[in-house]
Amino acid sequence: MLNDKDTIVAPATPPGVAALAVIRLSGAQAIEIASTVFRGKNLLDVESHTIHFGSIRENEKVIDEVLISVFKNPHSYTGENSVEISCHGSPVVVKEIIKLLIKQGARLAEPGEFTRRAFLNNKLDLAQAEAVGDLIHSETELSRQVAVNQMRGGYSKNLSHMREELIHFASLIELELDFGEEDVEFAQREDLIRLTNQILTFIQPLIESFDQGNVIKNGVPTVIAGKPNAGKSTLLNALLNDERAIVSDIPGTTRDFIEDEIVLDGISFRFIDTAGLRETTDQVEHMGIQRTKERMEKASLILYLFDLANETKESMITQIESLKSLDARVILVGNKADIAQHETITFAKENHFVLIAAFAKQNLEQLKKEILNTVLNKEIKSGGLIVTNLRHFESLRQTHEALSRVKEGIESGITGDLVAQDIRQALHYLGELTGAITTDDLLGNIFSKFCIGK
Amino acid sequence: MLNDKDTIVAPATPPGVAALAVIRLSGAQAIEIASTVFRGKNLLDVESHTIHFGSIRENEKVIDEVLISVFKNPHSYTGENSVEISCHGSPVVVKEIIKLLIKQGARLAEPGEFTRRAFLNNKLDLAQAEAVGDLIHSETELSRQVAVNQMRGGYSKNLSHMREELIHFASLIELELDFGEEDVEFAQREDLIRLTNQILTFIQPLIESFDQGNVIKNGVPTVIAGKPNAGKSTLLNALLNDERAIVSDIPGTTRDFIEDEIVLDGISFRFIDTAGLRETTDQVEHMGIQRTKERMEKASLILYLFDLANETKESMITQIESLKSLDARVILVGNKADIAQHETITFAKENHFVLIAAFAKQNLEQLKKEILNTVLNKEIKSGGLIVTNLRHFESLRQTHEALSRVKEGIESGITGDLVAQDIRQALHYLGELTGAITTDDLLGNIFSKFCIGK
Repeated sequence: MLNDKDTIVAPATPPGVAALAVIRLSGAQAIEIASTVFRGKNLLDVESHTIHFGSIRENEKVIDEVLISVFKNPHSYTGENSVEISCHGSPVVVKEIIKLLIKQGARLAEPGEFTRRAFLNNKLDLAQAEAVGDLIHSETELSRQVAVNQMRGGYSKNLSHMREELIHFASLIELELDFGEEDVEFAQREDLIRLTNQILTFIQPLIESFDQGNVIKNGVPTVIAGKPNAGKSTLLNALLNDERAIVSDIPGTTRDFIEDEIVLDGISFRFIDTAGLRETTDQVEHMGIQRTKERMEKASLILYLFDLANETKESMITQIESLKSLDARVILVGNKADIAQHETITFAKENHFVLIAAFAKQNLEQLKKEILNTVLNKEIKSGGLIVTNLRHFESLRQTHEALSRVKEGIESGITGDLVAQDIRQALHYLGELTGAITTDDLLGNIFSKFCIGK
Repeated sequence: MLNDKDTIVAPATPPGVAALAVIRLSGAQAIEIASTVFRGKNLLDVESHTIHFGSIRENEKVIDEVLISVFKNPHSYTGENSVEISCHGSPVVVKEIIKLLIKQGARLAEPGEFTRRAFLNNKLDLAQAEAVGDLIHSETELSRQVAVNQMRGGYSKNLSHMREELIHFASLIELELDFGEEDVEFAQREDLIRLTNQILTFIQPLIESFDQGNVIKNGVPTVIAGKPNAGKSTLLNALLNDERAIVSDIPGTTRDFIEDEIVLDGISFRFIDTAGLRETTDQVEHMGIQRTKERMEKASLILYLFDLANETKESMITQIESLKSLDARVILVGNKADIAQHETITFAKENHFVLIAAFAKQNLEQLKKEILNTVLNKEIKSGGLIVTNLRHFESLRQTHEALSRVKEGIESGITGDLVAQDIRQALHYLGELTGAITTDDLLGNIFSKFCIGK
């Protein structure tokens, strides 16, 4: 167990050489400790949210000239007294200052300990705290946006509020139970059903948004498949817009799996080029599918490429049929549409191929649109709120189950004690999401994934 | 030419994922530009050196929740209006905020442009500005210390002051020249000689400190040499205290140059292990010196190792003789002193060997002391001020030359116009050091080595 009374210190900015580095200090003694090493204004006398120039000294030795920002309890990130030291961005300077602060009584922070304290001091609920971590690690504009929304309250504030109301009903029903045989109903059943419906209506689209949230947070593993020489590497290059993959006329040029990504509308598509396809060409010539299937199973999206200049209708039908057994979403892409026969084009159009010419980079924008539409095929009904966190998804799913049982129970007239049990479960899962109910294990698990200094 | 009227923006912290990142904005419009994207207090109404919580928005889209620090002209690093935005440490967040600020009229800063502006606005002289760069790039505690001292004024403030006095004399002498043939002396020659002596006395130890300053800033390239199997890799490992070099009984085990460093008292010693020595053993068996010499020429310090258990007095004498032709400082090290013959030990002691047993890690502390003493053999007479910058060293050297001519000239009674010429030269070199005299080329050259955001 960490001692939450300690004053903790850590670098808050990435390691490395830069103009600035920021060192963060938080805890009851933060301002006192900083003031023992700071030569400038007396930090004990200054206002919160002010900045002071001076030097950090170890006795008479000047470590650096710095700006110190002072934040007073409760008006800081952690809710405690906090100090941020903005020093020159040299790892040596950062190390010396932190060593000195530790000598003066601070302790090096554990990963995520600042945010953990913010949570424990009710500056953020647990889902918001997790969103801080997601925000820092966001790699696309869209994942940043979803994380910021959640950090600013997102669905957890609403859920927290609904949970309060549900607690009210729970206590009324518990009261009924105390009266035992007397058959009183303190909790208006219609009101409870109304609230249950309200929560379910709020939760349902959030649960549905998770598919998409997952896509936003983790990207879409995408495979480009198709027969040898269909133009897979050329397409990958055209999409990546560089020459990462070595392209040649020789089948089997692509020797290694090339993993690269493009970001479309903030969603990251990680392309896995299917090398090695040709090695097994003999057995799968008519299809080129079997071997690639292993890779396709790991993919969420498959761009299946046909060389329209060299395909027969029969062969294409066989290939399309075999794709139907796959779980992933598939986009049929007709390559070399610029030099294909008229009747091949007609067949391709009938079968909703996206027609492109990868080498000439024709129609790639349409393909990109189709890629996005395929992944985002569900309309977001959650008012822009998207669940990206698996833990939240699980809590929401279990809350939904418990509340559905509450609703069914009341409608079928079961006894109060059974309804109470399901409500308690719903409260538990909702509480886990917002952090109203936590365990040290849960917190440890969440915050240990943070970086030091956050 | 850069436009110094622009408001510039750049990330001030290293790229990467962390708790925080800081974005810096400076220029006449800095506060206005920040206020257009900040939702919180009106930044135009706030005091200098205050911090404000709010959100950065592009229209209604929230980019991040941030803390904004406001610094008003002239009380900022650059001397201009400045804003620091402390956002979440995600590269995506940083990128989006900077994009937005550029859209609002800021321009991405050039490397070193913030510090260049600080110099142009007289917040720092040129030598101090250079010390900021040195501080950020300092890799040892000692180099940090020297850079901080220089950044805080160091010798350049004194030199600047002395230069002012010298300008006074220069103008008096120029005045004499205006009077042409009249043979007046406005400039008291004794006073001028006194000032000249004062400057020379200040400069001389600074010039001498450069050897050491260079060592502090750049480290000491060190070679461990000696015959095959003398224990060179074992010694390197013992000093590095790890198993970086592969050690075995087989001569020639060390195949590659291994470059690693130890830091003694803040000075970095970069050890270059002399592999490849054995390949040419046949020709140099009696010495093991010729081939290593190439490497030794690049080294400032050589630890020359003898295997005392397997050396004859004659062989050692030959080796010691051949070392005398080298420029580098040499420390003779007697290895395997724990198992050597008594008379070998006696010989080694007479020749001031440092006696060690590398494998048993005996006496290494004494060797480290000897290494430090050898490098720091000159006492620092400059009152702790050390010149680490080659440009400063050159300016000081040329100032010294010019002033010596001034002194000699006056003492030998040469005419005022010749004295005036030497004074002008001294003023020029001193001015280059402090930045009183600059060219765009010089500034460009200095600040282009800075990082963006500094």
